[in-house]
Amino acid sequence: MHTTLQADPDFVNDHSVTNTAMERPVLYVIKIGGNIIDDEEQLALFLKEFCAVEGRKILVHGGGKLATKLAGELGIKQQLIDGRRITDAETLRIVTMVYAGYINKTIVAKLQANGSNAIGLCGADANLVLSHKRVHPEIDYGYVGDVDVVNTAIFKNLLEQGLTIVMAPVTHDKQGQLLNTNADTIAQEIAKALSPAFDVTLLYGFEKSGVLMNADDDKTVIGKINAAHYRELKDKRVIFAGMIPKLDNAFAALNSGVSKVIIGKAENLKDLVSGQSGTTISLD
Amino acid sequence: MHTTLQADPDFVNDHSVTNTAMERPVLYVIKIGGNIIDDEEQLALFLKEFCAVEGRKILVHGGGKLATKLAGELGIKQQLIDGRRITDAETLRIVTMVYAGYINKTIVAKLQANGSNAIGLCGADANLVLSHKRVHPEIDYGYVGDVDVVNTAIFKNLLEQGLTIVMAPVTHDKQGQLLNTNADTIAQEIAKALSPAFDVTLLYGFEKSGVLMNADDDKTVIGKINAAHYRELKDKRVIFAGMIPKLDNAFAALNSGVSKVIIGKAENLKDLVSGQSGTTISLD
Repeated sequence: MHTTLQADPDFVNDHSVTNTAMERPVLYVIKIGGNIIDDEEQLALFLKEFCAVEGRKILVHGGGKLATKLAGELGIKQQLIDGRRITDAETLRIVTMVYAGYINKTIVAKLQANGSNAIGLCGADANLVLSHKRVHPEIDYGYVGDVDVVNTAIFKNLLEQGLTIVMAPVTHDKQGQLLNTNADTIAQEIAKALSPAFDVTLLYGFEKSGVLMNADDDKTVIGKINAAHYRELKDKRVIFAGMIPKLDNAFAALNSGVSKVIIGKAENLKDLVSGQSGTTISLD
Repeated sequence: MHTTLQADPDFVNDHSVTNTAMERPVLYVIKIGGNIIDDEEQLALFLKEFCAVEGRKILVHGGGKLATKLAGELGIKQQLIDGRRITDAETLRIVTMVYAGYINKTIVAKLQANGSNAIGLCGADANLVLSHKRVHPEIDYGYVGDVDVVNTAIFKNLLEQGLTIVMAPVTHDKQGQLLNTNADTIAQEIAKALSPAFDVTLLYGFEKSGVLMNADDDKTVIGKINAAHYRELKDKRVIFAGMIPKLDNAFAALNSGVSKVIIGKAENLKDLVSGQSGTTISLD
């Protein structure tokens, strides 16, 4: 059933009131990868800076080399197709142990020591991130999940209680199956889903300092990119190859309500957040 | 500063009103051990019955043989003193992976499939269970935690949201150190701490059918034990050895506000809860 908007002379005023009433609290969704997780010293520094960032926070972590190392120690062969791990049952067990267990709880304990009241979760917990086993015409990725739904109510409640959420890249299908899920995707889907309630900045930790004018020179970071600028950079082939899907994803997030996307070295978190480092991407 | 209670003629009435207002919702704190966790079929049956139990629920799980198996596969030697695992840094890593990762999330996913909105946590999460590294005059237990504080506010909030909490036996010291912690103790401390807010039944899954009149005959379960009865059973040496600390702990919980303690086979959860199986322990 459709609701027809009535031609109400007060509509403009009502709308502006709604806008004011809708002023949303700030939320950072920050994704870190192996380069931080695998380096104990870097991780400690990062977590200290992370605690100093003001506002509500969700930290999404990947897995790093630990899962591969453990699989090696246990003699479980890892198969990668296009850089994606094929997740057989044994690999899923390792992923669940390392990502949702060791890495997640180690980060939580360190955040707690830094005065941040962290809670470590995966997508199965409270049915936070519901996904389905990937269907692909040619490749059987195994127990890999593609995200369907982010259940925002519990996220909101936990954040409102002052908790910092630490998310492991494991989801479930609500049929009892855990699924290995890309951490970038989880961060993006959470950021999008929480945008109606929060003013969301989505920050991707990256091995480079940001989007570069010259891919070989880490000093050529483009500080700001908007939609028009992005089209221009693509036309000029400044941005190409692997950076295109990354930026397409960033704009998809922005078009779904995320306020800002920042890409850069998570080691410089403070400067990334303040816009003094990395690339800040916005619609205009 | 002390507050002196005034001789108020309405005091008796006030008191009874307070009692009525304090009628507490039912909470089950249920602990399961290796005999259930290690047996996939038993675990599936148990979790189905667990979902059918009405009321708020916290499931505390131990570790089972998986941690020992993984340690063996990785060539990490396990040292036990008086049946307690000595937790060196490598063993703590395994415990965190297996207990807080694999077992915890596997149970959560299965509960979700059974329609129970479960959330898997350890004591470091939201600072739920704060402990200190065990101090012992002779034995260095390694990274083993003794519980200091259960932080009830988040427990209450999560339960009020209709979530079922699944607790892994790992806590932290709020200095960044995770600690391997006895699951029975965690269950007991949580049950005690939540007693002011909930009408708590503490249920221990056990390898026997309950407290037995004849330790060798699983059919001689004593259905009910109260404090007077317990003294009698101890005097008559019906209860001896390993059962004494278990029952002492049960009475300590009851004396701290827990309404009921049930001991029996978790496989018979439904009958344990209804009092048709196992031993129900209460003060009177």
